This record gives sequence, C-alpha cells and structure tokens, in this order.
Amino acid sequence: MSARKQESADTSHHYTAKLWRQTLAALRGRERLAVIRSERLTQRIAGIISAPDGDPAGKARAIELGMAYLEMDDAAKLQFFRTLAKEFDADPAAVEAAGRRLTAATEPEERVAAELELRQALLPPRVELFRQLNLLPDGFRFLINMRADLLPHTRGDASLRKLDEDLKTLLASWFDVGLLNLVEITWDSPASLLEKLMEYEAVHEIRSWDDMKHRLYSDRRCFGFFHSKLPNTPLIFVEVALVNGMAGNIQKLLDPSALPLRPEDADTAIFYSISNTQKGLSGIRLGNFLIKTVVEKLGGELNSLKNFATLSPAPGFMNWLADPAQSQTLTGILSEKECTSLMDLANNNRAHEGLLALLRTRWHEDRKLARALKEPLMKLCAEYIIRTKRNGHALDPVTHFHMTNGARLERINWLADTSPNGMRQSAGIMLNYKYDPASIAANHAKYATRGYIGTSREARQWLA
Amino acid sequence: MSARKQESADTSHHYTAKLWRQTLAALRGRERLAVIRSERLTQRIAGIISAPDGDPAGKARAIELGMAYLEMDDAAKLQFFRTLAKEFDADPAAVEAAGRRLTAATEPEERVAAELELRQALLPPRVELFRQLNLLPDGFRFLINMRADLLPHTRGDASLRKLDEDLKTLLASWFDVGLLNLVEITWDSPASLLEKLMEYEAVHEIRSWDDMKHRLYSDRRCFGFFHSKLPNTPLIFVEVALVNGMAGNIQKLLDPSALPLRPEDADTAIFYSISNTQKGLSGIRLGNFLIKTVVEKLGGELNSLKNFATLSPAPGFMNWLADPAQSQTLTGILSEKECTSLMDLANNNRAHEGLLALLRTRWHEDRKLARALKEPLMKLCAEYIIRTKRNGHALDPVTHFHMTNGARLERINWLADTSPNGMRQSAGIMLNYKYDPASIAANHAKYATRGYIGTSREARQWLA
Amino acid sequence: MSARKQESADTSHHYTAKLWRQTLAALRGRERLAVIRSERLTQRIAGIISAPDGDPAGKARAIELGMAYLEMDDAAKLQFFRTLAKEFDADPAAVEAAGRRLTAATEPEERVAAELELRQALLPPRVELFRQLNLLPDGFRFLINMRADLLPHTRGDASLRKLDEDLKTLLASWFDVGLLNLVEITWDSPASLLEKLMEYEAVHEIRSWDDMKHRLYSDRRCFGFFHSKLPNTPLIFVEVALVNGMAGNIQKLLDPSALPLRPEDADTAIFYSISNTQKGLSGIRLGNFLIKTVVEKLGGELNSLKNFATLSPAPGFMNWLADPAQSQTLTGILSEKECTSLMDLANNNRAHEGLLALLRTRWHEDRKLARALKEPLMKLCAEYIIRTKRNGHALDPVTHFHMTNGARLERINWLADTSPNGMRQSAGIMLNYKYDPASIAANHAKYATRGYIGTSREARQWLA
Amino acid sequence: MSARKQESADTSHHYTAKLWRQTLAALRGRERLAVIRSERLTQRIAGIISAPDGDPAGKARAIELGMAYLEMDDAAKLQFFRTLAKEFDADPAAVEAAGRRLTAATEPEERVAAELELRQALLPPRVELFRQLNLLPDGFRFLINMRADLLPHTRGDASLRKLDEDLKTLLASWFDVGLLNLVEITWDSPASLLEKLMEYEAVHEIRSWDDMKHRLYSDRRCFGFFHSKLPNTPLIFVEVALVNGMAGNIQKLLDPSALPLRPEDADTAIFYSISNTQKGLSGIRLGNFLIKTVVEKLGGELNSLKNFATLSPAPGFMNWLADPAQSQTLTGILSEKECTSLMDLANNNRAHEGLLALLRTRWHEDRKLARALKEPLMKLCAEYIIRTKRNGHALDPVTHFHMTNGARLERINWLADTSPNGMRQSAGIMLNYKYDPASIAANHAKYATRGYIGTSREARQWLA
Repeated sequence: MSARKQESADTSHHYTAKLWRQTLAALRGRERLAVIRSERLTQRIAGIISAPDGDPAGKARAIELGMAYLEMDDAAKLQFFRTLAKEFDADPAAVEAAGRRLTAATEPEERVAAELELRQALLPPRVELFRQLNLLPDGFRFLINMRADLLPHTRGDASLRKLDEDLKTLLASWFDVGLLNLVEITWDSPASLLEKLMEYEAVHEIRSWDDMKHRLYSDRRCFGFFHSKLPNTPLIFVEVALVNGMAGNIQKLLDPSALPLRPEDADTAIFYSISNTQKGLSGIRLGNFLIKTVVEKLGGELNSLKNFATLSPAPGFMNWLADPAQSQTLTGILSEKECTSLMDLANNNRAHEGLLALLRTRWHEDRKLARALKEPLMKLCAEYIIRTKRNGHALDPVTHFHMTNGARLERINWLADTSPNGMRQSAGIMLNYKYDPASIAANHAKYATRGYIGTSREARQWLA
Repeated sequence: MSARKQESADTSHHYTAKLWRQTLAALRGRERLAVIRSERLTQRIAGIISAPDGDPAGKARAIELGMAYLEMDDAAKLQFFRTLAKEFDADPAAVEAAGRRLTAATEPEERVAAELELRQALLPPRVELFRQLNLLPDGFRFLINMRADLLPHTRGDASLRKLDEDLKTLLASWFDVGLLNLVEITWDSPASLLEKLMEYEAVHEIRSWDDMKHRLYSDRRCFGFFHSKLPNTPLIFVEVALVNGMAGNIQKLLDPSALPLRPEDADTAIFYSISNTQKGLSGIRLGNFLIKTVVEKLGGELNSLKNFATLSPAPGFMNWLADPAQSQTLTGILSEKECTSLMDLANNNRAHEGLLALLRTRWHEDRKLARALKEPLMKLCAEYIIRTKRNGHALDPVTHFHMTNGARLERINWLADTSPNGMRQSAGIMLNYKYDPASIAANHAKYATRGYIGTSREARQWLA
Repeated sequence: MSARKQESADTSHHYTAKLWRQTLAALRGRERLAVIRSERLTQRIAGIISAPDGDPAGKARAIELGMAYLEMDDAAKLQFFRTLAKEFDADPAAVEAAGRRLTAATEPEERVAAELELRQALLPPRVELFRQLNLLPDGFRFLINMRADLLPHTRGDASLRKLDEDLKTLLASWFDVGLLNLVEITWDSPASLLEKLMEYEAVHEIRSWDDMKHRLYSDRRCFGFFHSKLPNTPLIFVEVALVNGMAGNIQKLLDPSALPLRPEDADTAIFYSISNTQKGLSGIRLGNFLIKTVVEKLGGELNSLKNFATLSPAPGFMNWLADPAQSQTLTGILSEKECTSLMDLANNNRAHEGLLALLRTRWHEDRKLARALKEPLMKLCAEYIIRTKRNGHALDPVTHFHMTNGARLERINWLADTSPNGMRQSAGIMLNYKYDPASIAANHAKYATRGYIGTSREARQWLA
Repeated sequence: MSARKQESADTSHHYTAKLWRQTLAALRGRERLAVIRSERLTQRIAGIISAPDGDPAGKARAIELGMAYLEMDDAAKLQFFRTLAKEFDADPAAVEAAGRRLTAATEPEERVAAELELRQALLPPRVELFRQLNLLPDGFRFLINMRADLLPHTRGDASLRKLDEDLKTLLASWFDVGLLNLVEITWDSPASLLEKLMEYEAVHEIRSWDDMKHRLYSDRRCFGFFHSKLPNTPLIFVEVALVNGMAGNIQKLLDPSALPLRPEDADTAIFYSISNTQKGLSGIRLGNFLIKTVVEKLGGELNSLKNFATLSPAPGFMNWLADPAQSQTLTGILSEKECTSLMDLANNNRAHEGLLALLRTRWHEDRKLARALKEPLMKLCAEYIIRTKRNGHALDPVTHFHMTNGARLERINWLADTSPNGMRQSAGIMLNYKYDPASIAANHAKYATRGYIGTSREARQWLA
C-alpha cells in the first residue's frame, strides 16, 4: 500500500486525534499530553467520572484518556476493558439492598421509590465515562469504534458481555431510528461518502467507480440512515433497482450495458443489497426500519410503483444441503425418477452424494446438466427456506430477517446468481421477498407467534 | 386576541396535526381517522406496542392515537396517563422473579444473565409506545409537550411519577448534551426563533423587538443548545454582554442608549440571563453545560476576554428576610448602632420589623434612606447567600446552581436591579458569580462534599 | 436616536469599511491607509485602472480609494464624480476615428472590425474602475450605493448623466433577471431581512412586527428577487394575499383580526404591494418580471388559484382632478343632474370647484355625502385611468406600469382605501389589474403600439 | 460505450431538455411542442425578441426555439447562426445616423445624447434573444454551449465573428470575476464534480479515481471559480502542491507513493496545473485572476508559505527548435566545443540536424547522452523562453500568460517531465514561474510596455 493510501485508511483515527490535540491545546494553552500509566488507569477513570458537568479540566482529562486509548495495542485495550468491567460495574451490594427494599415495599410510594432506586443501582458508573467521552469532538465515532474493538472479546466472558450491554444500550438510545435521517445517496454525493459505500457493500461487491456510478443511475436508488453528528457516514444503506416485473437475475440487474428505464415506467422496486457499515452498532435495530421507510418514500414519489421486493441470496442453502442428514430429506422430497436421474448423471449410486459431487463441478455451464438439476435443487431449496426451522425460526438468516420484517416469500429464481460466490453459497438460486405494506403486520405476527413463513402460490409449487 | 394571533399561539399543535394528516393520507390513501373510544384505549396502545419495527399500519395507528391525544381535554389526558401508568407498567412478577434469580446466582455467567434480565424486567412496555410516537413526523416535539402535560399531575401520585421517570429517562438520552449543537443566535436568525426567545426569556423580560435587537448587538452574544430534530427551537439559551470590568448593574447593561463597545476591547463576558424553553425537558441537565460551553467558545474567539461571570439575582433573599426568625439573625449580624439607626428611620422599636416596613416603601428613590440601608442589607444578603444552607446546600436556588457548576461568588452589588421585580425579590441586590475554568472542578468538589461556598475577598467583606 | 440604533442605521457603511480594513491588513500586513489628496485623485484612479488583473497591490489601492469615498461628504463625492465624468470618459478622437473608419469600410471584414472598434472606443475607461471596485469584498453593494449617491446630481448635467449610464449599464448586466433568484420570504426568514422589508415597504406601511407577521401568515405570501452576492437583501419584493373573489378593500385585506383562509380554499391571489429597495438600481427592469414570475410560481403550487390581480392605488387621480382644466372634463362626463347635485351639496355654483371643496372635508365618514359622490368620482376616475394619456401612455404611472406589463383593468373599487394617504391621493379609490397569462402578450402589444388600455366590462361601465 | 455511459455523456443536453419539457408543460398545461420550420425561424426569433418582459407565452416560445436548437445537426445550427448574424444584426442605417448626429453635435447635451444613441444603435437586437434564453431554466448552460458550437465557424466569417462578439460580451459581463465564487474542491466534493475535473484536466491527465484522490490529499489543494447559477461546474480550476523548496520535477510531484507533508511544514505552493472547462467561455479573463486569488487565500491560511510558483511546460520549445532557422541560433549560442560534441554524438556534420536526430531517440534513458545534451538544451530553452518574441510578446504561450500575469521566470528544470508528451513538446524541460505579490504590478508593467521578461539570476545563467 502506498504511503498516501495508508493515510487514507487511517483517516478516522488520525482525524479524531488531530481534533483532540487542537481541543486540548485550546483548553490548556499547550498540546502536551500526560502519559497514563496502566496502574493509574482506575484512578484516572474515576477522576473523569466524578468531574462536574462540562468541566473543562474533566474534558481535558477525558481527551488524554481517549488519546491513550487510540495508541493502545489489542492487549492494552483488553486490559482497559477489563478495568471498566471490574472496577466500574454496578455495585452488587446496592443492587441487593434495593432489591430487598422493593420486596419489602407495601405502599405504592415505597414501591415506586424502591423500583427507581433499583434501576439506578443497576446502572454502572462507567456509563458516565461513556457520556463524558461522547462530549468530546468526534466522541460519537470514538465510542462506536471502541465497541467494535470490544465485541470480539465478549464471547465467553460474561463481565465483558455486560460491559458491552451498557455501551450498546447507550448507543441504541442515541441511534434510535427516530433520531436518524433517511438520506438519498446519488452521484452528486461526496466522493468520500461513495468511497465508503464501495468499502462497506457486503452483498454484491462494487468493483469500480464505474460500477458505483451505474448503481446511482436514473433507474437506481440508494438510501442510507445518517446521524446528524456523523454527517458523512451512512450507518446502513440499501440499493434499489427500478424495473418492470419481478427481477429474478442479479447479473442482468447489475449489467452496465442495459438500457436504463424511465423511472416513471417502472412498476417494481427491487431491493438487491442492504449493508451495515458500523460493527460498533451491531445488534441495534436499523435494517428493519430502513426497507420499510424506503418503501414508504418511493411509493410516495413514484405512483407507478406497485410492487416492492428484494432479490436475496439463500446463503445457508449449500451448507445445509452438504450435511449428510440431508440424504434422507432428499429421498423424501424427490421422486424416484429424479433420484435415479441424479445417480445416473453423477455415476454414483447414492443420490445425495451424487448431487453434491455434481455441485462441485461447473455444472451451470452445461445446459443439459443444468436442466436436469433444476427441479431437484428448486425443490430442495424450497424445503430449506420454507420448512427448515431452528427454535421455531427459519434456519436461513436472510429468510429469518425478512420474515421478522413482515415480508413473504414471492418467488424462487433459478440460475439467478452465477457468480462464484452465488454458486458456492446458494447453487445460483436467489429469492424474492415481497413487502406489501398492508400485510406486514399480519405476516410478522404469524411468523413471530407460529414461525409461519408466508409464501406465494408460485413459490409454494416447489414444495412437495 | 385577534384571530391571527390565535393561529400563531396554536402553531405547534396545528402544525403537528397537519403533518400527521398528510402522513396518514399517504399511508392509507385517505385522511379519515378512526375515533378512539376511551374503553378501547388499552387495546389500541397494546396494538401499537406490538407492531413490528417500521410497520406502516402500526405507524398509522400511532398517528391516530396521537391525533386523539391532541384533541383531548385535561381530564381525558389524565385518564390516558393513568392508563399508561397502570396497564403498561413493568410486570412486578417478572421483576420479582428476576430479582430472585439474581440473588440465587453463584456463577458470573448466571449473575450477568440475571442482572440483564432484571434490567429488562424493569423496563415498562410503555417505553416502546414512546419510541413509536417518536418515529412520527414531529414526534419529538409531541413527546416533550406530552411530558409538559404530565408533570403537573405527578405530585402526590407515585404511579404517574414513575411514568414520568420513564419518559424523562428516554428524553434525557435523546437530549444528551453530546447530541446537541451550540448555536449562536443573532439578528440574522429567523424572526420566528427570536420570537421564541422573547416568549421564553425568564429573567429580564424582552420588552420589544427593539430590545431584542439591542441584545444581539455587536457587543452582545446569545447562544442556545439545539437538537437537530427541532431546528428552530432553542432548548435553553443564555444572553451575554461583553464589557470592561465586572458589570454590577443590570439597568446600565440593558440600556439601549449606551455606546456599544468594540468586542476586541472587552475584558469580561457577563452572563446576565439563562432561560429554559421546554417544560417537558425539566430536570434534564442542560444549563450546567451551557455556561461552560459558551465560556470555552468565547474564550477561543476573543483573546482579550479575561473574566467570565454572571450578573444574577438573589431571588430568595427578600422571602428569607421576611421570616420572623430572621429577627435574631439581624441582631446577631448588625452592630448596635446599625440596629438603632434602623429603628429610628422606621420609627419602630424593633429593628427587624422596622427594616421590613422600610423595605415596603420606595426607599431606593430616597438617597439618604438608601445610603443608610446599604450596610445592613449587604451584610444580611451576604449572610443569606454564603452562610444560609438547607441540607448542606445553599438555600438560594441561583447560588446553589452556580456553586454546583463550580463558580465562586465574586461580588455583591448594591442597587443593581431597581426594577419592581428586582426590588421585591432581592432588595435591588445582584451578584456576580465568576467562572474560572481552572478552578471549576475544585469549587464544585468543595461544594459537593462540604457545602463550601467559594467567595472572593471582596464578597467576604460583607460577612460579619 | 439612541447610540445603538445609530449603529444599526450605519451598518452597511461600517460593515463594508470593516471588511476592507481586514482585507487591506491581510494584503499589506498592516491596516494603515494612505490618505488620498484630491489633487492626486486622477492619478490614483488611473493607477487602479491600469493594474493587471487580480493584482493584490491594485486591489489594495482600490480599497484605499473606496475607503476615501466612504468618508467623503456630498461635495467631495460630487468632485469625485466630476473627475470620473471628465477625465475618464470615452476619448472623442478615438470615437471619431472609428466612426470614420466605419463609414469608409467597404468589405464586410473591414466593416465588422470598424464596428467592434467603435464599440470599444465608446466604452469609457472608468468602467474598468467599476469592475475593480466590484472585485472588493462587498464591492457590489458599494457600487449600488455609489450610484444612489450619483443619481441626484444627474439632472441637468449631461456628463454626469453619461457617467450614470455607464454605471447603470454595468449594474443592469450584473443584475440581469436571469442571474437573480426568486426567494419566498416567511416568518422564518432572518429578522434582519424582515427589518429591511419594514423599512422599504413603499405602498402600505408596515406598522409593527405584529403587522409584519400578519403579512406572512398562512394565507399570505411574500416573494423577492435576490442576488447571490447580496444574500440578505431583497432587491424588490411583492406582497400577496390569498383570498376568495377579487379583493376590493385594502383595510379589510390587512385587518389582523380576520380569520385566515386555508390556502387551498383560495381562488384569487391579490398582489397588494410591490416595492424596490435599492435606489442604486433604479431604471433596471425588475418589477416587470417579479409579478409574472410569482404568478407562474403560485399557479404551479396552488391548483385552486384561478385569478391573479393587483389591488393598486391611482396615485395621480386627485392631482389630475385638482387641475382647473378638469372643470370641462367634469361637465362633459357627468349628467346635468349630477352636476347640480354637486353644486347643491357644496353650496357652490361651480360643480368642479364644489367637488374639490367637498373632497377637502372628511366626506367619506358622512354616509349620505359618500353615497352622493360615488357615481361622479367613479366616472371621473374611469376617465382618468382609461382615457387620459400623455405621449400615448396612460397618465397614471401605476396604470402605465401594469399596462406595459400586459395586465388589464378589471375593477374600480369604491372606498377601497380610506387611510389618509389613500383619501388624499386617490379619493379612496383602488383598482384591480388582472394578470391573465394567456393575454399578457396581446395586452402588452396593444398598449405598446396603440396605447390601448384593456378593460373588463365591469370597469367600462363607469365610462360615459 | 455502454448504454449507461452514453446516458452519462449526454447528461447536460438531456437534463436541459427535460427541465424545459416540464416548464413548458407547466406553462401550457401540455408538453406538446410546435415544430419550427426553418423558413419561419426569422419570424419565430422576432416574436421572442418582442415579447414583453417575463411574458409566459414568450417564455414558452423561447423554450420551443431552444428545444429545436438542441435537436439541430451542425448544418442546421450553422443556418441558425447565419440567420442571427444576418437578420438580427445592428441596423447600419441607424448606426450611421447616430454617427452623423454625434459628429454634428456641438452642445454637451447633444453630444451625450448622440453618443448614447450610437451605443444603443450598435447593440444588435439578437442580444435580447440571448437574454430571453438566459431566463429559461438552465439557460445559462445552454448559451455557453451554444457559443462553443458557434466558435469553430467564426474563422473567416466576419459576420459570425461579430455574432460571437455579442455573445461573448454578454457572457463576459455575466461571468465577471466579481460575480464568481472561489471554491475549494476536496475529496468531500460531489463525485459528479470530481468526474468533471478528471474530464477537463488539460495539462497532466488524471488517470484514475485513485490519482484524483491523491491530488486532493492533505498536502494538496484544488480551487475553482464557480458561478452561483452553475453550482456543480467549475469554470476553471487550478491544482496546487504544498512542498518544501521549489519543486522541479512533475513525476516526483505526482508520485502517489511519496509521504504526504504536513501542510504547516510546507514553505512553497506549486501551481502545477490550470484548466478551463468551458469552451463557450474562451477569451473571457478568468485564469489571470484565479492564480492570484488562490495565492491570496493560501497565504492567509498557511503562514509558513513563503513562495508561490508554477511548475509549467514550455509547450512550444520543440516546435521552435525544429525550425531550420534555428540552425543559426544554435551556432550563435553554443560554444564550438558543444557543437562539435553534438556532431560527434549524432554522427552528423551539422550540429542542428544532429541535435534534432538525437532528440528523436529515447535519449533521456541514456545517462551519458542525457548529460551531454543538458547544457545545449538548457541554453537553447533559455533563449527560446527569454529572448524569442513575436510582436513584442514571448513566443511561448505559457510564458506569455504568466508574464502578462506579472510573474517572473525563476528556474529552468532539466528532465522535469519525462512523460512522452513532456519529451515531445519540451524535451523534458519544465519552468518555474514565481508569483511574488509585491512585484506583480511592476513585472506586468515592464512586460506590457517593453516586452521585458523578468528572470531570476539562476534562470539567467543559461543565457549566453
């Protein structure tokens, strides 16, 4: 990587540090930083937490701590998190005392007082540190990045998981959807913002600036949620194509040589990619809102739009199919003739094994083979998507997301994504989930209560 | 009030209702509203709470509820609050169960799980209703106004106070100072915004647009905290005068005929008024931050500024002095000669009674009388401000506010506010509280731990 | 005037000077200004004119000249204008030479060259000075104000009138309507901007901020043309009321106690006031465009609007009527009975004299008298407006303006403006001029070629 | 080119047409366009010119004409231009009459009147058409593009050249530098704007988005002049590198792997590229201002900057050198030894011929050869740049530009641009022209009056 690229990659970190140095210089009349020795970390944090609201000296100390954090390596960060987890947790004695008072309370007044006290006791003092850090310039971004650093350590460490819960709860309230702005992203958006889209697009890689531009054409739309304190950073974004009919092939959709459609001639909006950009906001509900907010917005702008649907992968299909347990599923679903055919084609006397062997070849380039595999794979995929559950939820994570959201499965598309990744994950199959505003609540409720997966008649045809 | 003025006064209410009607029309294709009968209120609220994230049908129902609220009279609102308080409170059984699990927990994993569960159990379902309302256009303002409606009912009603706590906690996180913007308000600000300042100025009434303009002159400053979702509404604002030396007289400060000072010639910034505008945000810490943030900003902009201080009333002084108990205080503090003098002047053989009688006259217009009262009143005021406490806090609320903030008492000013209000509350006395960035933390700590009120030598001279 | 008001009144002058001092300090490293002695003025101007494009030293000298101008009294300014007029005019010899070459030219090439040369020769060198001044910060405003200073001197002084032509031509190209922005002015506009409206409203005085606010209500509109280099300064603005039917009374229109109409219920937009703000732009066509641009805009926004009309005074009516020559007009138009009645009412045996005497009383407060005067005055006003011409143009300046614009006279309104000014100028009569987009070109053409004044049947009824 | 790229290339044309269709639909209630037959062109234009100010019908007809123009092929456009040139030129009879009146005038009043009349007579009626077109949405861009279409036809056609003069004069007044904004272009600028920079960079091609980003790094600057009516279109832009010492090699300057410098550590700003973007604005002075405005701006922002200079090609050097006439120059300048050496190296007994032959090889990759050629080529280049004139101006166009601007020649750099283009045009030599604010006026004057080319001692050393 060139020196200049390097600068770019580190931008956020450097930018924050630069802002802080300037603020510190303004507060203290000099830029010099106290070094924070690890054995004094606890004392330092305590000092920041107890500073009066808005105290400039407290602010300066918070900057010193933040600067120190930015310089820490992973081990030091872990040490820092452990200190927060251990030394600045809620006081168990206070929690217990408040709990006892609540149990003992008989009068409403007492009960309310005790309940509020218990809530207060459950709020760890470290939350005040997070608040103080958030008051720094760019403090918002710092906390999000800090949580991204913390998350990998939370597995198997209950106290760090609790620390993470505190941070997440705080961020969740600051990033409540009611506080975010839906912003349309276009080719007139800042280059630095589009660069971030290219970096964060998680579903169908944006290969070049040309590709980026094609995705922002007159028959394309892109929307993101933004927070006013992070103006150039989409927290999550969705890419939409305006088309005629339900699009069933991602390569066609992304083909830069296709003639653009006049937006007012389109009857369908296809949501073909949705990506989060901030690891530090994971677990905070944003995606659920984004699709529906965009449906509302597009529906209001373009009267010709009648249908809103996704074009989505089935990312767990091939993994599920590869499980030996699916040998039985296969024989249960496919007809005898289909099984025999698979065995013949694969030259293998076990249908499941044969199928898996065939799927390891470049089968989709062989027309005859592809034709032979269509029925079996579509049936198996329908079985996987519609009938395969875990704990009452769809096994496929994308299906689970859209069902929770109140969509229904509209269509299963054959050879819809023939990219290497699409073949490897989903055997090239993609799905349309349809968002019908009038049915969202009912679909959601059926899925939430009974795990019921709504399907169109067309999709259901592939069920045995 | 003219019809047109009326329109203006109701703006916020009408504006919100208009936005909602439009949104509803867009969501449903028609504007018609279902009427919500009070016996179905509980069911309605439950339906909104259980709607999936971003569900347009849920949003429409939330609008219907909000519209119904806007039309309610006080009694109906109280009924609505009681429903929320009673039917959508935290489940005591769940709280108890989680509490028991926490007590029983032995392993860290268990303990953390139980603690998180307890926190969750303590979160009433009505909070989800507030979140859904906040998603509506102008929902933010609606919730603030709703809390303003609720507050008068919380006295003596524990369950409503708890409901208020829930709303306050939510608003406090959304209005965290880290999420607000400090904005300078000038004569180039929108007239509608300045009109709000004129309406909300709580300390020294803004009498006319001319007066408003004078307060925004080249040697004046005005700053407010704003939330990006309420762009034209200062949540709190402070008015500042740039002067030479510590200003000790509010009438001189506000005199429109005085020659303006060149800002770069001023050595002192006087904060002479600070006002909250939203009852619905009461109890949420904003003022503590505002003064210090403005000190930081002005200090960075104008190098000539050396001192930052307030010119504040002593709003509780006259009330305190009127208490018969102060008869003893008076004789303890004043010299015998002073007491005799008071008795002579008042023609009353009790000094305290005599003083109070004199204070009911237009004494400050009588030069000789005023001269005679100066020493006694300044001493008594010093006693009131510096030595009179309740529960370890300064009795005077303004003193308490600035001490908590880390200021110190700099000067007591004689005949500093001769307006009727100033004479009635503070016998015309005003105080300078000085903000020295380097001493804020220490001042705050001394006051917080020992109730110690920092004073300058000049202020202390009035103590016996 | 208080010191602070004074500051405000001088704002523009001081503001410009302040900007220039700063720029000069940045250019030269110090603020010191050379004093320009009047005997060196010519040399100074020549130096600025000959500086290379964008030369910082030339810019500094231009600032010095500008600063000197700001300090000049009227006599010195006149001296300055005379210098420009005399020393920096087009060179007559060069003009003559080019003229001869043009006359002598036979080939197209020669002819074109000579014509361009002639054009060049006619362009005085002072125009380059104006360009250099325009490059200064706020230079735009400076030039406009300079022309406002110049205008009073141009009467009777041909060389100053020519100087003014140069400046006007330059300003006219810079303020070409194609370069201006139509901006809606609302109660959310900056207070400093609204203050300017209050200052510049030329037709119906805005009496207070309350009055200002009423004129920006939900059923009112205000639009102005702005130049991007003078962002807070409307060059011209128009006030509009949305009403039902053709409004015929200005007091009713401006009554703050009237209930506001829902804009979507209005069928007529009444333009009741149009005011220029910059004397320095007089003679530059703006008003012609403003009304029609606003008609186009409002028509696009509010489908319910069917009619666009003004409510205008007849400012020359009373003056015209007072002319003894109108004695004959009166007897020609009024019936014998009407004349007799006037003589009786006035107790004067000359009808014209009698009428004038009556009009000097508070006649409109006397119901009977008012009723008796209606027919005669309406007929006379119709005669004045529709039939009275000078050089083929309507004598009344407002009528001339709207006829040139392509409007037609729609209605003559009795007791439509009973303010002292309205009574004195127009005997309380006001007129509606209607703008029908489809007829503008035809109306304009008829008036331009034949002086024909388009009228509705209703207006024509008052003609004899 | 893909269909989508195509869309992009045509954007401006299509965008304008789309806007116009919408406006027309709004004006007329339908989108239908009258077709303009060429034989009625004159009549159509006359109709537009005579429409009253702001007439909606006139506006609609102007749109029809504009739409027709957008559809015209080159031949039809030429026809259109010829119509404007012939039918809508100034009236020669009126010019002559006014000329006669001017000659005959004796009194100042008469003289001024005649002169103004002459000016008016010289103003062709087609200028009013341009003004009407400029009133259309996007009309500004339309006129600029129209002039770009016109320019190629003006050679050898006097009447079209005169038409062009009219358009240029109008555009020059609308694009007067005093009306433009200097805007800094950064990586946060709209992608669509940066795309235009990539398209228009005329000096050192921007090869990719990565290259673009490097040119906007922390130690780079880019500024452009913008007009408020063309917000996303830089009219001209300049690229600057902040460096230490006078940069003498363009490849090093553009090397993306070089470590970026902290801006506050740079002592020199190098202007390494300046590009116009609008052919339709050619001949309008912008570049002269841009460099000096940026010098002023950067000087004010970064105190460490001491020098401002360009790194420029000598685009005419190799052409000049190739002229057989330079055989004599060469022998006049080079020492005998140098001539002999050239003959030896080239194996050619004529030094000039030999040199030219050597320059056709990849000589700069041969260290020894390059060393041998350095002295002769540097001397010849100095001769070319400093001493070679035509009509008293520097022959090299870049030298002429910077001398007119008031710069001086600071250094001649060997092997400073080894790109194919750099070798072909300038034998790899580049020049630094230095802008010293204090000397600009003097440098400019010496060059303007005497053709004197200012040089540093270092540059002069290469002169014989």
